[in-house]
Amino acid sequence: MASLPSVSYSITVRLELDGGGGTVSSLTNAVEHVGGVITALDVTSAGHEKIRIDATCAARDTDHAQAIVDALGAIEGVTVHKVSDRTFLMHLGGKIEIKSKVPLRNRDELSMAYTPGVARVSSAIAANREDARRLTIKRNSVAVVTDGSAVLGLGNIGPEASMPVMEGKAALFKRFADIDAWPIALDTQDVDEIVRTVQVIAPGFGGINLEDISAPRCFEVEARLRELLDIPVFHDDQHGTAIVVLAALRNALRVVEKDLSEVRVAMSGAGAAGTAILKLLMHAGAKDIVVCDVHGAVYKDRPDLDANLSWIAENTNQVGYRGDLKGAVRGADVFIGVSAPNLLTGDDIAEMNDGSIIFALANPDPEIDPEIAHLHASVVATGRSDYPNQINNVLVFPGFFRGLLDAQSHNVDSDMMVAAAEALADVVSDDERGPHYIIPSVFHSGLSQRVAEAVRKAATKSGAPGR
Amino acid sequence: MASLPSVSYSITVRLELDGGGGTVSSLTNAVEHVGGVITALDVTSAGHEKIRIDATCAARDTDHAQAIVDALGAIEGVTVHKVSDRTFLMHLGGKIEIKSKVPLRNRDELSMAYTPGVARVSSAIAANREDARRLTIKRNSVAVVTDGSAVLGLGNIGPEASMPVMEGKAALFKRFADIDAWPIALDTQDVDEIVRTVQVIAPGFGGINLEDISAPRCFEVEARLRELLDIPVFHDDQHGTAIVVLAALRNALRVVEKDLSEVRVAMSGAGAAGTAILKLLMHAGAKDIVVCDVHGAVYKDRPDLDANLSWIAENTNQVGYRGDLKGAVRGADVFIGVSAPNLLTGDDIAEMNDGSIIFALANPDPEIDPEIAHLHASVVATGRSDYPNQINNVLVFPGFFRGLLDAQSHNVDSDMMVAAAEALADVVSDDERGPHYIIPSVFHSGLSQRVAEAVRKAATKSGAPGR
Repeated sequence: MASLPSVSYSITVRLELDGGGGTVSSLTNAVEHVGGVITALDVTSAGHEKIRIDATCAARDTDHAQAIVDALGAIEGVTVHKVSDRTFLMHLGGKIEIKSKVPLRNRDELSMAYTPGVARVSSAIAANREDARRLTIKRNSVAVVTDGSAVLGLGNIGPEASMPVMEGKAALFKRFADIDAWPIALDTQDVDEIVRTVQVIAPGFGGINLEDISAPRCFEVEARLRELLDIPVFHDDQHGTAIVVLAALRNALRVVEKDLSEVRVAMSGAGAAGTAILKLLMHAGAKDIVVCDVHGAVYKDRPDLDANLSWIAENTNQVGYRGDLKGAVRGADVFIGVSAPNLLTGDDIAEMNDGSIIFALANPDPEIDPEIAHLHASVVATGRSDYPNQINNVLVFPGFFRGLLDAQSHNVDSDMMVAAAEALADVVSDDERGPHYIIPSVFHSGLSQRVAEAVRKAATKSGAPGR
Repeated sequence: MASLPSVSYSITVRLELDGGGGTVSSLTNAVEHVGGVITALDVTSAGHEKIRIDATCAARDTDHAQAIVDALGAIEGVTVHKVSDRTFLMHLGGKIEIKSKVPLRNRDELSMAYTPGVARVSSAIAANREDARRLTIKRNSVAVVTDGSAVLGLGNIGPEASMPVMEGKAALFKRFADIDAWPIALDTQDVDEIVRTVQVIAPGFGGINLEDISAPRCFEVEARLRELLDIPVFHDDQHGTAIVVLAALRNALRVVEKDLSEVRVAMSGAGAAGTAILKLLMHAGAKDIVVCDVHGAVYKDRPDLDANLSWIAENTNQVGYRGDLKGAVRGADVFIGVSAPNLLTGDDIAEMNDGSIIFALANPDPEIDPEIAHLHASVVATGRSDYPNQINNVLVFPGFFRGLLDAQSHNVDSDMMVAAAEALADVVSDDERGPHYIIPSVFHSGLSQRVAEAVRKAATKSGAPGR
């Protein structure tokens, strides 16, 4: 499970070389010697005596990047100048911008897009508020709202530090579904204040994507906002993950020829993602599920259950299992982990039912090393991009909101989520489907459009007005 | 003061004509006969028997547009098909959109702009919060915040209906100063809630542009937010207007060769704009000012003064004048109106000092007909685009915020506003300046850049860190 050199730790090192070709060929050797990869060599100027080269190298992490720079500097005749970090360069000044859809070249255009012409459009909306969905960006806009309390694996880093993630999300919304999303990073972590703030800023948006808000606050925030607002509210960490898991599980079960209603599922993790996965699997027909948290299986009458765990205890674990995770996995058909690294061993997987399915989604280090899991399981999926079958929210959220906006939906329901999962699963054709291909790539052509169309139909069926 | 046909009431009428050229020439006559103007005639298909034409016509208002359609339909051999309103067409789906600044063509780019690469950028900001101004859109973004309580001349039309105006503002920010502004229309008109909401959503923004919030609430909202936030807060209806007025007055006084510190100024209107103009004129050196509201002059001990009017009474009207507006105007050098239509007559203006200056800014109908004012005054300005010397906020707010963002300013002060006014005034050269040209066009090349540079310098002088 040692991580490989990655472009996300890519650096560009400006070098000056005294000698000729001999020195150049030593660069690649030096970088490879410390386990790095040169992905590009650009000669920026060359003379008789000196040659300048920009060497772009992929590293494993920040320390490794420094080791590469040191190795280059240690070569005789090589001087290291500026070192640029490509990821930071890409972030300078932010990742999204505004574009005006109207030309403002002259007075006439100004007087239509702004005063006095705009007054007639405002008056029309004042007379019929629903016209805002036709004549303003409400038609196509989503607020990406976070309080910075559970950002990626970084935890509670606050609103400013969460912005690069929210901007990335906005860029993905545009790239994959032509949605105009704007990041709203909140300077509060109080549930009442989050709810009230989102309610107050909602009029200009067609949907709310909650993001990286820690459990259990995220449950209450979402539930209250859904009650208060007439636009869809979707906590991506919960439902985005759940939809992709259901899609992947649907295809994995086809591979092993089992039925969702008959399999035994052991889950590790009862936080935001785990709870959403559980509920969506049950909505889709799963019946035999045991959920474990850090204290082991969740069962009725277990001490210290909060509201969320009580619901889980009431609605799962029919057999009343009270043991630990390893015991829950024994004899199960499916393991789904959204918890912590290295909880299971190959021996644990070996004791599962034949044709077992492992979704080890803890990031960056899964619940079990996927290479070891493969020795015993039929299908393995992780959250990592360097193994097959990556469970990635980007597969769903752009198309899901595209469908909601196209339907002008006022809400989100589980039927829409199941429809999205089925559409996503069906992107993988019968011919293509196999143990290493249960879920398509995010770059699969037409993927978001297929998810969007399924969601739009489901929303219209649920009563959305449609376009 | 009868309004002229305007592109902001422009319609495109699809017509089918039975006859030949004779019928076509009758179209122009028919439209002109009812006072309209055909601005374009596009033949979309032509045959022996029939010809189809899209006639684009400028009208005065909605009723006039209908009269034009009726006149066209009344021509023998002409059938009216679809009528499109160009202003509404321009607003379909909103006027702004998001653009991703980063390419997301493949896995490598995704892993730098989003997970896992983005985590390093977020960690850097978590370690040093000020880095958000370098590595996120906070560098270049402004929230355009309204509660929809005083939108244009339309009044309290609410958040949804205010969106076309806020989007127009965002489009202007981009067009004139490359600023990324996003509209935030608030579903509350409570001062405490407005203040708290803006405070909570502030982390992702580099500045706050308050817009169309009614007086006197706007004063408290702005003052409290300036106290609470470490980014500049600017109520454009107040200060944008004040800066343009000061710039125009500076040039008007040059035309009549008078000095700001020596002229007597009569003002009509003590709302948001009036108060801001008053304070900025005083900061720039004006000494002799009488402010009138609907009850006449504001003076010490006048009954029923609120906090704002009390301040005005304490700091203006040294002579203790207690009469009405007409009396205040008598003998004054400058009249500035931001109030209501048709308060003054030619006779009133005739009783002003020689070389009088009239800024009649009530919209759409000024305090005095500008054509009558011209008979008696040396310089006349209005808020209208169909007369010379239009006082228009678009001249200031884009460049003003550009300067604040470039300086990474944490606040706004009156020195920055005076600097902006001087830069704006000086866009008009000595050779160009005259009674009909005291303020440049919004399309004047390099205008926003000059305002921005002056504000950036003033902000740096006031302690902003600079870029």
